[in-house]
Amino acid sequence: MIPTFDDVRAAAERIAPFVHRTPVMTSATLDRESGAQVFFKCENLQKVGAFKARGAVNTVLSLSDEEAAGGVITHSSGNHAAALAYAARIRGIPCTVVMPEDAPSVKVRAVRGYGAEIVFCKQAEREVVCEREREARRSILVHPFDDPRVVAGQGTAALEMFEDVEDLDVVIAPVGGGGLLSGLTLAAAAMRPGIRVIGAEPEAVDDAYRSMQTGVRQPRVPDPTTWADGLLTGLGEVAFEILTAGNTEVVTITEDALLAAALFHLQRMKLVVEPSGAAGLAALRSLGIEMNGRRVGVIISGGNTDFRWLEAALVI
Amino acid sequence: MIPTFDDVRAAAERIAPFVHRTPVMTSATLDRESGAQVFFKCENLQKVGAFKARGAVNTVLSLSDEEAAGGVITHSSGNHAAALAYAARIRGIPCTVVMPEDAPSVKVRAVRGYGAEIVFCKQAEREVVCEREREARRSILVHPFDDPRVVAGQGTAALEMFEDVEDLDVVIAPVGGGGLLSGLTLAAAAMRPGIRVIGAEPEAVDDAYRSMQTGVRQPRVPDPTTWADGLLTGLGEVAFEILTAGNTEVVTITEDALLAAALFHLQRMKLVVEPSGAAGLAALRSLGIEMNGRRVGVIISGGNTDFRWLEAALVI
Repeated sequence: MIPTFDDVRAAAERIAPFVHRTPVMTSATLDRESGAQVFFKCENLQKVGAFKARGAVNTVLSLSDEEAAGGVITHSSGNHAAALAYAARIRGIPCTVVMPEDAPSVKVRAVRGYGAEIVFCKQAEREVVCEREREARRSILVHPFDDPRVVAGQGTAALEMFEDVEDLDVVIAPVGGGGLLSGLTLAAAAMRPGIRVIGAEPEAVDDAYRSMQTGVRQPRVPDPTTWADGLLTGLGEVAFEILTAGNTEVVTITEDALLAAALFHLQRMKLVVEPSGAAGLAALRSLGIEMNGRRVGVIISGGNTDFRWLEAALVI
Repeated sequence: MIPTFDDVRAAAERIAPFVHRTPVMTSATLDRESGAQVFFKCENLQKVGAFKARGAVNTVLSLSDEEAAGGVITHSSGNHAAALAYAARIRGIPCTVVMPEDAPSVKVRAVRGYGAEIVFCKQAEREVVCEREREARRSILVHPFDDPRVVAGQGTAALEMFEDVEDLDVVIAPVGGGGLLSGLTLAAAAMRPGIRVIGAEPEAVDDAYRSMQTGVRQPRVPDPTTWADGLLTGLGEVAFEILTAGNTEVVTITEDALLAAALFHLQRMKLVVEPSGAAGLAALRSLGIEMNGRRVGVIISGGNTDFRWLEAALVI
C-alpha cells in the first residue's frame, strides 16, 4: 500500500507529543559560497539523533492493541533500532532487536538505553533469527523503511520544513532505503507542487540512482566501500513507487564530497552530522551553479557517529 | 568605568542586525541525569562561532567616526581576534591583529577570512609590537574583555536568555577574563534579581575563584595545563568589580569534567562546543543535587576547536 499526504498529516498529529519539531538552520558562509539560500532541517537534533524516530513512533502508535500486545522487533542495528526501542518505550510494549555479535558497543548501549532486549546472532543469520524470535514472541516486525506507516512518519520532517520555510525552489534529502526521500516527495507534491525534489546518494551505493535511470528497481550494491553507513540498503518498493510517480531525481556524490560536507557541518555550523546525514549538502555543492539564486531546503538526516571519519576528512 | 544594564540594553539594539539571536537548546537525557531543567544558550552558533562577536561589534559600532578612522587593533589570537575582524568589516574600517609566528593556521585563516591584516611577531613581543602598530596606524586597541563596551556587548547573550527562558533559578557561564560572566551578572540583577549566578572555571586557571574567595583580584596563573584554551587570561578589573558587587559565585572544575562535558555536547546534543565553552555544563554537574528541581540557564560560549581534545575525551 502506498501512503498519501493525508497519511503524513495524520502521522504529524500522532507523533507530535513524542518527537522534536527540529530547528531549521542556515549558514551565511555557505550561502555566499553556493549563491543559493540554503535551509537545513536538523534531524540530527531529533529524538534518538535521527529522523528515524518519526517513522518508528508513527508505526508503533498506529498498531492496534492486539498487534501491540506482543511487542515489536527488528533486525536493523542502526538508527532504526534505537528509534524502534524509543517508540516501544513510549507505548509501553516490549521491543526486541536482533543484532550481529560484533555490533559496535555504542549501538548496543543506545538500544539498551531505551529499554529494548537485544538478541545477538551471527551476521548472516540475522533474518532467520529475527523471524524465529518474531514467531516465538508474536511480535510485529517493523521494517526500517519499506512500510507505508514508516514512510508517512518520515514525511513529517518535510511537512515541518515546508511549514517553516516559505517559497522553496529545491529540496534535497539523503537516500538509502528511501523512507525519508519518499516522505519528502509526498509532502512536496502536496505543499509545494512543481518543486524540484532531489535524493542524494553516494556513488558507492548508487542503486537508487540506477533505479530512477532505468525505471526498474535495482538491488542493493553488495559490500560497498563508503562512509555513509546509514545508506547501504537498497531502495524499498514503497519508496520506488512514490519517487517514480513524483518525478524525483537522484544525484550521486563522491566520498570526498561526503566527508567535506560532514566537516563543513562540524567546523562551520558547529553541528554533529553523521556522514550519511551530510549527503544533502554534498549534493547541493555538486549541483554547482544550478543552485544559484535558489531557495534550497536540505534535510540533515542524523548525527549518530563515532567520528572515525574525522581523521580522513581533515586530510582531504 | 563600570557598565550598567542600560548599556547592555543599548548594546542589544546596536548589534541586533549583525549577530544571531542564538537558539536555546535542551537535553532530556541531561534533565533526567541532573534532576534539573537545563537550558543551553548556544553561543557556539553565534557569528564567528563565539559570544565574542557581541562585545566586538558593540565596541566597534560605539566608536566615533574620528576614532574609527584609524581602524582597530588587538593582540588576542583567539575568538576575540576573529570577532574584531568581523566587527571591523561591518563598519568598513581596517583591523590589525598581532599574532605569534606559530599561531595555528586555522586561526590565521579565520582572521584573514574576515579581511583583517595580520602582523606576525615573537610570542613575547606581542604587546610591544601591538603598541607600536597601534601608534603607527592611529588605531583603537580593543581589549578582549576589560572594557565596559565589551562587557555590555557580552551581556546581550544573557539578556536574550532571560527573555527566552522564564523563571530561571540559576545561571552559569564560563569565566576567563570575565566579560561574559560580568555581562551575565548585570543582566541577572536587572531581569531576575536574587537569581544565583555562577562562573565556571577550570581548576588549572582558578584565579577568578581565588579572587572571589579573597576579595582581591588575583593575577592569571602562569603556564597552566588545561584544555580550556579560551579561559587562560586573568579576571579583568571591570569584571571583578561587577562580580563582587553582584555576589556572583565561581566554582572550579577538573579537566576530566571539562572534557566529559564537551563530549556530552558532541555525542548527545550533536553540538560542537570547544572545551572552554563546555565549562558551564561541567560546573552544573559538579554541583550535583544542589541543582535538583532547579531551572538552570547555561551559556555555551563557543565552538571553535581543532578536536585535538576528542581523543583524550573518548578514553576518560
